[in-house]
Amino acid sequence: MRRIAILAVCFGLLAGPALAQSKAAIQRLEDQWAAAFNKGDAAAVAAMYAQDAYVLPAGDAMVKGRAAIEALWKKDMSALGDVKCTTLDVKPLGASGAAEIGNCSFKTKAQPPQDGALKYAVVWQKAGGQWKLLVDIWNMDK
Amino acid sequence: MRRIAILAVCFGLLAGPALAQSKAAIQRLEDQWAAAFNKGDAAAVAAMYAQDAYVLPAGDAMVKGRAAIEALWKKDMSALGDVKCTTLDVKPLGASGAAEIGNCSFKTKAQPPQDGALKYAVVWQKAGGQWKLLVDIWNMDK
Repeated sequence: MRRIAILAVCFGLLAGPALAQSKAAIQRLEDQWAAAFNKGDAAAVAAMYAQDAYVLPAGDAMVKGRAAIEALWKKDMSALGDVKCTTLDVKPLGASGAAEIGNCSFKTKAQPPQDGALKYAVVWQKAGGQWKLLVDIWNMDK
Repeated sequence: MRRIAILAVCFGLLAGPALAQSKAAIQRLEDQWAAAFNKGDAAAVAAMYAQDAYVLPAGDAMVKGRAAIEALWKKDMSALGDVKCTTLDVKPLGASGAAEIGNCSFKTKAQPPQDGALKYAVVWQKAGGQWKLLVDIWNMDK
């Protein structure tokens, strides 16, 4: 009985980091990101990035750091909404890093609204027990 | 004397993984990538990627795996040349991962040739003692 308990603890410890980088866990972070974006809360979106994170937008210059990232998303929020992002794959990088591949759909706020789509890669980094976006870059197929 | 020797070994071990992810080391890999591309050697370019690597091209669908990556670069080699890539920053992710931010210049093979530029993010993964591209994605500022 005690042996089973110890084994359970061991499996728990082993599974911990792997689960933290699972597709489901990263998808929850993406849902949190999109919810903040769709609410127009640029500060909440920026708070999900590491302090020294990079964002490399398609069609715009790269930005570094939370203040610049908040300004970028604030600008984009006035043009886009209904963002929904889907995690397609997650590759763990050590215990505190992960590379994510995904795609997003969105609608423009023009009249009439137009549907858009993009694919992206995000590098996640765990710091202080929390996963943060360290690199965020996307582009379009066409 | 022996203590100094032991300290030297310890520093060597500590410095090892950090140095392997240095900007200079990653720049050398980028130079190797560009040299293979500019020679038209798609197989050599593809061999620099992990077996299950992703490439997310701007203006084209994402591809996964070395065979698809080789076909993608073979196609691009007929349209582009004189590629030169510059590593701007490298963030280590554990001992066997790194996120790189950089930019590239290139010339189209159209007549007359046109200058082009892009920015990119690469996730590097060390496997079997060698650094391989695990994720490769780029876009343009305009």
